[in-house]
Amino acid sequence: MKSSNFFLALRRDVNEGSMLTNLMIKGGTIQKLASGIYSWLPLGYAMLSKIEKIVSDSFEEMGFNRMCIPTLHPSALWKKSGRYEAYGQETLRVYDRKNNEFIYGPSAEEPCVEMVKQANIKSSDLPINLFNIQWKFRDELRPRFGVIRGREFLMCDGYSFHETIDQSSDFYDQVLLGYKKMFQKMNLDVIVQEAQTGEIGGVKSHEFIINSETGEEEIEHNGTRIKALELGHIFLLGDHYSKPMGLSITNRDNKNIPLIMGCYGVGISRLVAALIEQNHQDGVISLPKQVAPFQIMLINAGDSCDLCIKTTNKIYNKYLDITLLDDRQISIGEKLATSDLIGSPIRIVVWPKELNSGQIEIRVNNKKQFIDVDNLDNIIKAL
Amino acid sequence: MKSSNFFLALRRDVNEGSMLTNLMIKGGTIQKLASGIYSWLPLGYAMLSKIEKIVSDSFEEMGFNRMCIPTLHPSALWKKSGRYEAYGQETLRVYDRKNNEFIYGPSAEEPCVEMVKQANIKSSDLPINLFNIQWKFRDELRPRFGVIRGREFLMCDGYSFHETIDQSSDFYDQVLLGYKKMFQKMNLDVIVQEAQTGEIGGVKSHEFIINSETGEEEIEHNGTRIKALELGHIFLLGDHYSKPMGLSITNRDNKNIPLIMGCYGVGISRLVAALIEQNHQDGVISLPKQVAPFQIMLINAGDSCDLCIKTTNKIYNKYLDITLLDDRQISIGEKLATSDLIGSPIRIVVWPKELNSGQIEIRVNNKKQFIDVDNLDNIIKAL
Repeated sequence: MKSSNFFLALRRDVNEGSMLTNLMIKGGTIQKLASGIYSWLPLGYAMLSKIEKIVSDSFEEMGFNRMCIPTLHPSALWKKSGRYEAYGQETLRVYDRKNNEFIYGPSAEEPCVEMVKQANIKSSDLPINLFNIQWKFRDELRPRFGVIRGREFLMCDGYSFHETIDQSSDFYDQVLLGYKKMFQKMNLDVIVQEAQTGEIGGVKSHEFIINSETGEEEIEHNGTRIKALELGHIFLLGDHYSKPMGLSITNRDNKNIPLIMGCYGVGISRLVAALIEQNHQDGVISLPKQVAPFQIMLINAGDSCDLCIKTTNKIYNKYLDITLLDDRQISIGEKLATSDLIGSPIRIVVWPKELNSGQIEIRVNNKKQFIDVDNLDNIIKAL
Repeated sequence: MKSSNFFLALRRDVNEGSMLTNLMIKGGTIQKLASGIYSWLPLGYAMLSKIEKIVSDSFEEMGFNRMCIPTLHPSALWKKSGRYEAYGQETLRVYDRKNNEFIYGPSAEEPCVEMVKQANIKSSDLPINLFNIQWKFRDELRPRFGVIRGREFLMCDGYSFHETIDQSSDFYDQVLLGYKKMFQKMNLDVIVQEAQTGEIGGVKSHEFIINSETGEEEIEHNGTRIKALELGHIFLLGDHYSKPMGLSITNRDNKNIPLIMGCYGVGISRLVAALIEQNHQDGVISLPKQVAPFQIMLINAGDSCDLCIKTTNKIYNKYLDITLLDDRQISIGEKLATSDLIGSPIRIVVWPKELNSGQIEIRVNNKKQFIDVDNLDNIIKAL
C-alpha cells in the first residue's frame, strides 16, 4: 500500500485524554466521536480486524461455532434472566417507535440462551458451543483511557452448553488453556487469576490480566503490586441463566434438567489499545507482526537518487502485501516522525549515501542498523 | 466440519412470516429475536461473512480504505447536516444516562464527514475513499420479509471525497463498474437504473436491483413489469453534506471550497436472503460456491457398510475445508431433507449398492447423477 492511497489521518496537537489515547489519535488509529465512543480510522481498523481474526480463529480451534447476535435485545429476555435491573444506569435502554423497550447488549447471554432454546435440542445435540463478535454498549459513568474503557466496544463472547457440570467444567478448563494460547499469539503474557462472578452470576471464574498504566484495580502478583487491566474473563455459569429462562433437556433418567452454561469474553477493541501500550517506548510504536497493520514501513530518503528509487520500488513490490510505502511529498523528517506512530515492527529507510555501498537502514523492534540489501529477506523471514 | 460439531438449529414448524423467511428459519440460517431483528445462526453467519468478504474485497479493489464507524452517532452531527428530521420516526433516537441524544445510524455520512474533517486535510491528500461495514438501524413501521427489510441490518457504506465534481463523477463511474463486477462474483445479474436521490440528497444516483418476489416497487424493464428489490445504491452527493458540515479545503486559487462527496451502499444482510431466494427451487437451496457456507454436503447412506464408511471418510478428509459431513444418528431420509436446506451446490450421497460398482450419487446445482468415485475431483474442480 502507498500512503497516497491510504487515509493516514495523522494529528499534530491532541489533548483529548490520557497519553495512550492521545498517541492513538495522533497516529491515526482512532478518533473521538463522543464521550467513550470512537471511530476507527483505516490504520486502527486494520489492527482491530487482525486481532478479531486471531480471536475468531482461536475460538474456532477451541470448538466454538461463530454466530451473530443483534446489538439490541428485547428487554423481556432480560426480565426473564433477572439481569434487567442488575447493572443500573450502565444498561443502555432504547425505545422504538412503538415504545417497545430494548437493551443495547453489554453481553449476550439472554439472546444466546434464546437461540439454543428455539432450536428444540435433544441431549444428543450437546455440547453446543457458540461465539459472537459484535459491538456492545456499557453506559459507563466515567469512560476512561479511550477504547480501554469506552462505552461502545467490540467484544468476543462465547457460550457453552453442556448436560452436566463435569462436562462443562472440563470444557471450561480447555478454554482456559485456549485463552493462554490466544494471547500468546499476540505476544501478550497474561496473568490468569481466579475472580468473582459478579452480576453475570455463576460458580467459577478466571480473569486474564496484564500489568498496565490503564489498569483500574491494584492486585498482588508474585510479591509485587501491579495495576491489573482485564483483557479476558471466563465464567462457569451453571444454570444461572438456563433455569430462569427455561432452557432444559430431558436426560436419560427422563428428568427435565436445565443446561449447564459457561461464558467466555475477550475485549477486542480494548486489545488494540493494550497492545499499543505494551509495545511502545520513547514515542515509537513497534507492534508484534501478527497484529501490526503493516509489517514493513518503507521510506525512500533519496527522492532525486535513481538508485534509491529503484531499490525502494524493488523492496516495495517484493513485500507488497505487508508494506506501507510513504510516497507523500513531504520532508524526510516528517516521514520518519510518522513511521514512529504506524506500529510496523520493521522500518526500512533507503539513504543515498549508504546505498552507494549497498546498504540500507533497518529498524527492527526499535533497534537500528545498516545491512546489505541482499540480507533483507533473511531479516524479514526471521521476524 | 462434522454436523455433530456444528449447531445446525433446524426447525420443523415455522410460520413466522413470508415463505422465504420461513425457509431461512427452517434451515437454521436466522432466528427472529424481535420484529425486524434477527439473530444469525452459524450457517447464516457463515454465508453473511462470505458475502461481507466479497463486498469488502471489492471495495478495496475499487480503492476504498476500510474503517469503522460506531453504531451510535451524536445527534448534533445530524442537526448540522440537516438530516435530523428527514426520516421522521424511522430514525431511532437513543438517550444515554446523561440524557445526551444519539441516533442509531441508518447510514454514516455525518460521522464520516467528521472523520475527514478532524484530519485537517490538504488538497494533496485527496482523493479520500473510505468504507465501513457496520450494523445499522432503520425503525421501519412494517418490517417485512425477514432480513430483506429488517430493522437492524448489516450494510457496507462507502464515501468518496474529491476536489472537483468531474473527479468525483469519474470515480462514481468507476464504482458503478466495480459494483457490477462485485454482484457478478455472487452470480447475481443486477439491473442498473437511474434513481432519485431522496433524503440522502445529491446530484445523481443509480440503483442496483434484481427481480424478486420480495421487491416492493414495480418497474418496467426490457418491456416487462418486474418487482424490483434494491441490493445497492450509489449517490453523487456534491457538497450536500460537506457544505453545511464545514468540510472544505483551500484550492490552488486560494479559495475555500467544500469537498465533493459520493456515497455507495450495499445491503449485506439483505443479500443473504436475496441469494437464497434466487437460488432455490422445489424446496432445494443450491447457492453459488462463492457464498455457500459449505461447498459440499456429504452423506453416508450405509452406516453398516465398511466400504461406505471408508469412502465417505476419504472424501471428507480430502475436502475438509469445504465439506459438511452429516454424522448425526438419524435416518437417511432426515439427512436428505436437511441437505436440501443447507445450500451446498454439491451434495454427495454414498449408497452401499452403487458403491459396489464404484459409483456415488452427486447432485450439482440441483441435477442428480451417479458418477465413478474417481471422477469426483474433476466435477468439484469444474464447479
